[in-house]
Amino acid sequence: MNIKRHSPRILAALVCAALSASPLTHAAPGDATNPLVIQEQGSFAIGGSVIQGPDGQTLHGDHARVFYQVPVNPRKLPLVMWHGFGQFSKTWETTADGREGYQNLFLRRQFATYLIDQPRRGAAGRGTVGGTVSATPDEQRWFNTFRVGVWPDYFPGVQFSRSRDALDQYFRAMTPDTGPIDAKLASDAVSALFDKIGPAILVTHSHSGGMGWLAAMKNPRIRAIVSYEPGSGFVFPEGELPPAMASAAGALEPVGIPPAEFMKLTKIPIIIYYGDFIPKAPMANPGQDGWRVRLAMAKRWAETINRHGGDAKVVHLPEIGIRGNTHFPFSDLNNVQVADLMSGFLAEKHLD
Amino acid sequence: MNIKRHSPRILAALVCAALSASPLTHAAPGDATNPLVIQEQGSFAIGGSVIQGPDGQTLHGDHARVFYQVPVNPRKLPLVMWHGFGQFSKTWETTADGREGYQNLFLRRQFATYLIDQPRRGAAGRGTVGGTVSATPDEQRWFNTFRVGVWPDYFPGVQFSRSRDALDQYFRAMTPDTGPIDAKLASDAVSALFDKIGPAILVTHSHSGGMGWLAAMKNPRIRAIVSYEPGSGFVFPEGELPPAMASAAGALEPVGIPPAEFMKLTKIPIIIYYGDFIPKAPMANPGQDGWRVRLAMAKRWAETINRHGGDAKVVHLPEIGIRGNTHFPFSDLNNVQVADLMSGFLAEKHLD
Repeated sequence: MNIKRHSPRILAALVCAALSASPLTHAAPGDATNPLVIQEQGSFAIGGSVIQGPDGQTLHGDHARVFYQVPVNPRKLPLVMWHGFGQFSKTWETTADGREGYQNLFLRRQFATYLIDQPRRGAAGRGTVGGTVSATPDEQRWFNTFRVGVWPDYFPGVQFSRSRDALDQYFRAMTPDTGPIDAKLASDAVSALFDKIGPAILVTHSHSGGMGWLAAMKNPRIRAIVSYEPGSGFVFPEGELPPAMASAAGALEPVGIPPAEFMKLTKIPIIIYYGDFIPKAPMANPGQDGWRVRLAMAKRWAETINRHGGDAKVVHLPEIGIRGNTHFPFSDLNNVQVADLMSGFLAEKHLD
Repeated sequence: MNIKRHSPRILAALVCAALSASPLTHAAPGDATNPLVIQEQGSFAIGGSVIQGPDGQTLHGDHARVFYQVPVNPRKLPLVMWHGFGQFSKTWETTADGREGYQNLFLRRQFATYLIDQPRRGAAGRGTVGGTVSATPDEQRWFNTFRVGVWPDYFPGVQFSRSRDALDQYFRAMTPDTGPIDAKLASDAVSALFDKIGPAILVTHSHSGGMGWLAAMKNPRIRAIVSYEPGSGFVFPEGELPPAMASAAGALEPVGIPPAEFMKLTKIPIIIYYGDFIPKAPMANPGQDGWRVRLAMAKRWAETINRHGGDAKVVHLPEIGIRGNTHFPFSDLNNVQVADLMSGFLAEKHLD
């Protein structure tokens, strides 16, 4: 049909017809077969700086890139989703095996979503510092570090498709840095995003976990943090640092910051999730053993936050009976169940 | 509201309420204030190859990245939108001054949209060949080459916002190559996209114009091409090459290909649009003068296509009274008018 020929009233009728006539509405409302009704969508660059050459030419770089969608009747607080190391906004989009990721799942739950590409990554590749992109094959290492299995074997019961296409898409969801990662610069850009959009919830993954704490200390508009498998950058008050933790993946060092800064993290609810296949005792496989100390450090970190009057919680999914998750719980085969947990947290904290 | 609590019937009612209760439905149906009703959206990698290191590690790279949206009741043929040099899928999203780009405008016109990041660019940054990313300031050169004006002056009547924020967003819409541009590899990936999605219309810009001809010769599922300001890669049958055309931006060389290949381009409708501020006679400013010969070559190219029984047309917008367009007509201030022209072409060729 040529929608341009129809009046607004008829358009509304057509939309409702599409919604109610279609067999799709017999599915659950959150079902992937129902249409997404988007009030507004678009993209923009945020943060960054400008450098000038001797010839007066400029370069605008070091911004983050954001793609956002606002559903009709959005909830009060948007979700800002920040990818991890080697990844980009794709983290939250279609899963490797072709199901809906957090972008769609939470749009269906009436949240506005803002997906970030951090400075010098993906669509935000224009930086004020150059870089070298290597094409060194390294994917089996990531397969292990992301706890899909121990290459070439998948973990028994892992929540990851065994199809070759899924693994192909999974590997192609990585994209290189176009310049040095700079935690201050990245957290500045994310803080600038919250200045632009106002109060919202920050969802981080892996490497953005630590940078997410930095952003939250910079901007009180970050009203809560949901952090999936933070891997580094655990900040502690100077004088209260736990010892570094050794693992087959190297030592995990806590980061000391001024106590007044740390206290800012005690003002918001924070929840941290880790998946399965994390050993209790040291083991030789660095891909798994690194997560043993990251999980331990996260628990130590949450204890410290709470000792100072904060509200942080670490949920180790197998401990609540949710098994088989990789380093990417939000895109694993059970990601609707994982999303339900996050929805439960947001409801419990009256953030939805 | 917690949408998960509602039945499908109630959901439909809520959506309809949202649509009809809101004052927004008093606007025109294609208006940016009406909701987009998306049946399906997602992203995937397409094309590319795999290399293996001596240690058995692999690297999947050289794919294109695609973000797609399918509206409810889509038209027969999707639109596949391919950015130009130094750009990425952002080209088709929100304009530099915050209005809707072709992604939203054509979703509102009931077309499914597929936005590409070509191999080794933006979200498709993972390549099988490494590269060096330079941070050399060069934006005033692009300001001139993209015909916004002659830095620091805007062209009188240029269809580009004078706001500083718009220029800031415009410059930040560039992203570097993460490896060498490879026209064969890029057109292979785009051809693979058409293998996946079936018959569709290819929309190209600038540098993707020439690569778009290559893709169309590889894949008959490309049913038409709308090319905005193709800048190079004009293919002619061997033996029918026009002379190179000299300009202040350098010589534009035609590309010879086997006549049998060329003939494939005579089987589909092709329309080419160029904007304003292209000089009729040679001038010293390379930013403008380069387009003088590209426009001339495009006209020569269309004549050759048509002489061989094809259907190609070059529309120089000022000649039909549409003035002030830059190198990015689809995101200029008058982009709805420019989109109407494209809709008219698609209707005329029964492609909608």
